[in-house]
Amino acid sequence: MVQYSQSLDTAFAALSDPTRRGILEQLGRTEASISDLAVSFEMTLTGIKKHVGILEEAGFVITEKVGRVRQCRLGPRRLDDESAWIDRYRRMVEGRLDRLGAFLERTKERERT
Amino acid sequence: MVQYSQSLDTAFAALSDPTRRGILEQLGRTEASISDLAVSFEMTLTGIKKHVGILEEAGFVITEKVGRVRQCRLGPRRLDDESAWIDRYRRMVEGRLDRLGAFLERTKERERT
Repeated sequence: MVQYSQSLDTAFAALSDPTRRGILEQLGRTEASISDLAVSFEMTLTGIKKHVGILEEAGFVITEKVGRVRQCRLGPRRLDDESAWIDRYRRMVEGRLDRLGAFLERTKERERT
Repeated sequence: MVQYSQSLDTAFAALSDPTRRGILEQLGRTEASISDLAVSFEMTLTGIKKHVGILEEAGFVITEKVGRVRQCRLGPRRLDDESAWIDRYRRMVEGRLDRLGAFLERTKERERT
């Protein structure tokens, strides 16, 4: 019954925090170092590293040490699976609402005749 | 910088568990009682109640006591905001990749001439 998708689990968990969504948005515009991100989000280096670690584990971010600086950029993961799951769910719900609407329409029709 | 959206936080956190996604999928097909769900997911009533509680808090599920049975159905929340956030993010990343591609194309062009 349950579709076990570890990957969807870690992805949605990674997206459940406003700072992590903000980091993705910032890296979507341009690369940034851990220090850049700490300034942007008014957070300690340790705090930002923790968030970046979670994003890295989910495949959303890649980090690379360049000299003394840890540089962050978007990883290979593009949220395609997450988007697909949500779209499938919405279509299913809409389909059900459409069928319910059609049923109510038929019922009204029958009452009129 | 950070867009605080409590609602996106609770939504993505609710979706980060395979049982909870499964419950949404089952309720998308038809209503179910807590006991029905416990059977479907081979889980204790307490375990299912906890998951349903998290989905209820996020607005994804509504429960109603009918006699002795707690009946669950989909709530008013339709994942529109979550879908919009992901789509916006994907468009941003794709836009950046397109610009990068165009830049590489121009560079190659210049080398040929």
